[in-house]
Amino acid sequence: MKVAFIGMGTMGAAMALNILKAGHEVTVHNRTREREEPVAKAGARRAGSPMEAAQGADIVITCVSDTPDVEAVVLGENGIIQGARAGAIVVDMSTISPSVTRRIGAKLAKKGIRFLDAPVSGGSEGAQKATLTIMVGGDAADVAKTMPVLSAMGKSITHVGPSGAGQFTKAINQVIISGVYLAVAEGMTLGLKAGLDMEKVVQALAGGAAGSWVLNFRSTNMIKNEYPLGFRVRLHRKDVAIATEAARELGVFLPATALVEQIENGLISQGFGDEDMSAMARLIRKHSGLD
Amino acid sequence: MKVAFIGMGTMGAAMALNILKAGHEVTVHNRTREREEPVAKAGARRAGSPMEAAQGADIVITCVSDTPDVEAVVLGENGIIQGARAGAIVVDMSTISPSVTRRIGAKLAKKGIRFLDAPVSGGSEGAQKATLTIMVGGDAADVAKTMPVLSAMGKSITHVGPSGAGQFTKAINQVIISGVYLAVAEGMTLGLKAGLDMEKVVQALAGGAAGSWVLNFRSTNMIKNEYPLGFRVRLHRKDVAIATEAARELGVFLPATALVEQIENGLISQGFGDEDMSAMARLIRKHSGLD
Repeated sequence: MKVAFIGMGTMGAAMALNILKAGHEVTVHNRTREREEPVAKAGARRAGSPMEAAQGADIVITCVSDTPDVEAVVLGENGIIQGARAGAIVVDMSTISPSVTRRIGAKLAKKGIRFLDAPVSGGSEGAQKATLTIMVGGDAADVAKTMPVLSAMGKSITHVGPSGAGQFTKAINQVIISGVYLAVAEGMTLGLKAGLDMEKVVQALAGGAAGSWVLNFRSTNMIKNEYPLGFRVRLHRKDVAIATEAARELGVFLPATALVEQIENGLISQGFGDEDMSAMARLIRKHSGLD
Repeated sequence: MKVAFIGMGTMGAAMALNILKAGHEVTVHNRTREREEPVAKAGARRAGSPMEAAQGADIVITCVSDTPDVEAVVLGENGIIQGARAGAIVVDMSTISPSVTRRIGAKLAKKGIRFLDAPVSGGSEGAQKATLTIMVGGDAADVAKTMPVLSAMGKSITHVGPSGAGQFTKAINQVIISGVYLAVAEGMTLGLKAGLDMEKVVQALAGGAAGSWVLNFRSTNMIKNEYPLGFRVRLHRKDVAIATEAARELGVFLPATALVEQIENGLISQGFGDEDMSAMARLIRKHSGLD
């Protein structure tokens, strides 16, 4: 298929490479044009704008930083909406507001352009190894058409519901991990203060009701007080803000998530925004007199 | 081996039966004597007091409700300390205060009686099927001697450290599950308010960073707003109180755990204390206008 890919960040560039490898024709664009070069060397064409990239494409993927960036590349000057043909499918793989997602979809629909929201989890490692988890919202027929391209980027691809459902699912993911990281940080700190051998404790607990991905893969960071990437605090805080904004719109009570948002604000203020989000343990450790 | 078992509650009776099945000689005692009958029918002897049960035993197990109960059966009138021979090993499998555990161990040590703390997780199902997770604190030589009896009751048995370490590990377990249950309750409620098909959402998230035992096995309760047992709110609240008391003694900052303790107080006040602790979702759902 003819695929346009807008956004050559760490995630987007790796994902576009995997689409190329799967045998599709790929045209790329990035606001900072040099970032197109590595993917162009691997065989992609370059386009001067999102509009130009979208011309003639069957599928136009966006993977940019935040809600206003998606609005700009899709609906703005020289945006995708001006280049894409009727029947083309725009797939936004950024993590943005579910309600703005629905508005963008409605505007594209007026021109006959289809829209899917398909945010991912799995980080830069998942993007490189094509093992991303992809949560897709939109019409089933459009999801089916894009599946050959999505499956080039991810391992677990779930069509969760109509437009916006992918973004809501990603928001739910970020809400859940907020509380789980905090829970594990509290548990590890209690054990360290009690003088326990925490590797043994984690081993004793990992197979039971306290078991989680975070306990398996991030408790060691918290025990060592070292937070290599991972998933940056500032990116999670951005995603949590999307979730708490959605909660405000829908009237949802998220006390643990709100607490984590505040903890992350504090971490960013202190210069820890580019650490892995397991750095949440810094607050718990520090305020327990460990560091 | 000659084993005495004090406390024929739902957990203790099932655990004593499994020790019998493994071929050990078992003597049981319970404050309410009728509770001894089912295990006696299976071949156990009955004793009139903890002291009497402990006479001649190699290993004396206690599995009772709370810290004062352990103090009473071990150190009180007609207590284990008056019946057990020097060299016998007392194994407390209740969930109680780590600091009181160390004090009990010190008092027994003066009479040459050994002491292990070995709280469990895995619930009544784990007790029946002999699949409990057992977290053991104490001396390695004593742990080794009791292993034939412990392995009759549990699947995962970890010697986590010196006296009290088992109770601290259990407290860490209860701290971690506090935050994880709350996190999953918030995520499920956000999705329900957004109108998503939550079974699909759970399927999309379970394999990634948001994955946990609670998401796998308790999210359906929260989605359906039905909370069959499981693990009772009032028992978890008791254990969380042990953890927050330990945190007070050690100076540990546990904000999410404290929030959950308050939520559980509220649930118990409203008559939900005997539901599974996934009933935490009741507050989040209700306060989000779902129920």
